Amino acid sequence: MRDSIRIALDAMGGDHAPQIIVEGADIARKKYRNASFQFYGDEKQISVILEKLPKLKAISTIHHTDDKIDNDTKPSVALRKGRNSSMRLAINAVYNGEADCIVSAGNTGALMAMAKFVLKVLPGVTRPAIASYYPTMRKNHGTVLLDLGANIECSGRNLAEFSVLGSVFAHEILDIETPKVGLLNVGEEEMKGNESVQDAAKILSKLSLPNYNYVGFVEGNDITNGSVDVVTTDGFTGNVTLKSSEGLAKMISYMIKDIFKSSPLSWLALPLLLPVIYKLKKRMDPRRYNGGVFMGLRGLCVKSHGGTDGLGFANAVGVAAEMVQRDFNSKLAKQLDQLTPALEAQSETTETDKA
Amino acid sequence: MRDSIRIALDAMGGDHAPQIIVEGADIARKKYRNASFQFYGDEKQISVILEKLPKLKAISTIHHTDDKIDNDTKPSVALRKGRNSSMRLAINAVYNGEADCIVSAGNTGALMAMAKFVLKVLPGVTRPAIASYYPTMRKNHGTVLLDLGANIECSGRNLAEFSVLGSVFAHEILDIETPKVGLLNVGEEEMKGNESVQDAAKILSKLSLPNYNYVGFVEGNDITNGSVDVVTTDGFTGNVTLKSSEGLAKMISYMIKDIFKSSPLSWLALPLLLPVIYKLKKRMDPRRYNGGVFMGLRGLCVKSHGGTDGLGFANAVGVAAEMVQRDFNSKLAKQLDQLTPALEAQSETTETDKA
Repeated sequence: MRDSIRIALDAMGGDHAPQIIVEGADIARKKYRNASFQFYGDEKQISVILEKLPKLKAISTIHHTDDKIDNDTKPSVALRKGRNSSMRLAINAVYNGEADCIVSAGNTGALMAMAKFVLKVLPGVTRPAIASYYPTMRKNHGTVLLDLGANIECSGRNLAEFSVLGSVFAHEILDIETPKVGLLNVGEEEMKGNESVQDAAKILSKLSLPNYNYVGFVEGNDITNGSVDVVTTDGFTGNVTLKSSEGLAKMISYMIKDIFKSSPLSWLALPLLLPVIYKLKKRMDPRRYNGGVFMGLRGLCVKSHGGTDGLGFANAVGVAAEMVQRDFNSKLAKQLDQLTPALEAQSETTETDKA
Repeated sequence: MRDSIRIALDAMGGDHAPQIIVEGADIARKKYRNASFQFYGDEKQISVILEKLPKLKAISTIHHTDDKIDNDTKPSVALRKGRNSSMRLAINAVYNGEADCIVSAGNTGALMAMAKFVLKVLPGVTRPAIASYYPTMRKNHGTVLLDLGANIECSGRNLAEFSVLGSVFAHEILDIETPKVGLLNVGEEEMKGNESVQDAAKILSKLSLPNYNYVGFVEGNDITNGSVDVVTTDGFTGNVTLKSSEGLAKMISYMIKDIFKSSPLSWLALPLLLPVIYKLKKRMDPRRYNGGVFMGLRGLCVKSHGGTDGLGFANAVGVAAEMVQRDFNSKLAKQLDQLTPALEAQSETTETDKA
């Protein structure tokens, strides 16, 4: 175990900042005893909350700034005008080696633009991607889905790289020895899909890497049925899938409540159902799956859902802490060291084939 | 009301054909008293089932063929070698004017390829699309989603056309006076999304058609929250969204059952919950939303889910019958008559702008 996990927090990002940022840190510190926190943002607001949490206060520092990135700030504007924002200063802390990771619940586009600009990408990565993991029908088995929106249009090479990023995450963080990797498509047949999916499949079917197992095309339902460990797609499809799933889960939960309301007899059953409701809520709790990991950067950056609460934010901090603890980036770098020559050897072979 | 609705059925398509095809027709005839059925497929197998359903038999004819399209037959092969298949003969019946619509639970790709080849597209349509509708959080309010997989890569013009097809469906079949039409994207901001989405937005924001109201970009969660009536997207995204939603709904239902199983105390509540379970099952029943409408063809064609049962197939038949009853295609043609000049006027203006 590492001596310390130094976590930089954008204290002003998200709908309920800085309240839930500080609360989240306080929940996370109970699990990660070696953690310390750096809060970037409005000192007055942060210290008021911190005063009530002496144990957290003892392992925290506050770095004041008046400036913050709003939710509707364009990434390009954030880059130009946000140099003193809480988000940017927290990212800088990772770049300067003062922190091991940064967590923000703020503007995703701005966070990705700034993190990419400041931290730069790891050798072998063309574009960083956003990944998260989801519950499946198999107990204690989650699926890593990426990209969730960083890259709207992707080449086959991009998708191939994403699949390796996702596989290393599943291996290192979810403890799956040789993760099964699928490529999201509209059918399992070989000839289906758009050009980039077809290109990616060609690359991946010939790719040989340790602890990496490309199993072919998968479909939308494979995200939740547990048939694979990693589902790779472009940021457009990934983002729509993520948000439509959130919407659907919300609708189902709404329908269940609505039907209960309209069936007075069923209220009698409620006391008997409390353990069921509790377990269901726990297992479906979106806060448990909070934390979009920015993968492929030279520093660890995790994005929390903007509307989450302290527990949700603590989970995002937990993902970051786990990645620091397990030295994720140096393991990813090792795999990437092997990816680049493998991909280059392939394109040489393809050239020779053509010649 | 029309004197008759003549429905051609591919009796050999789907996992449980011809059993559920005949059963489905029998359920549908109770609602559509003016319907008659033409079964294309193995006469022996069909007539055995039909014998037990004398009322259906009285309004049915059987058109024998030994040939059928398998689920794994490629569309191109189906086109070349499937000329005597049950699917093809059923489509031909619409082309020849012997039937008003065709319903199949068979191979989607083959059905689209053959329907497009035989029936041809309506004037003003560049590419036909597959549409279906879904429950939302608003009671008695469904969202039309298209394309669900007919067109993997789409131009802005394609998406613009789809949105008009979807809007006419919502207006004519779901009885929404002026449907709100959204374009699926990764954010609501104007600058977001890929090129075809951007192009489509430019076209649609200037498009003026009767009973058509383009409201802008929507996100994945808008499919189920009832904020719009039509959600337009390319076939890749639509197909993935559809299948991931099916997968998620399945997972949630599985989790609920699993938790009930592990909580013996909750079993005591089951009798009290029966009405709730009944209502929930009814409202979430995928069979209620069965029926992928092929839109933009010169004949009406509806695709049923391959794994559905008689009730599900009856719903797909119901969608087709409703479209015949309401003379959907001639109303669509009217709207398309206005679409083409509107789009052409736009591209002329754009040319002038550039000059």
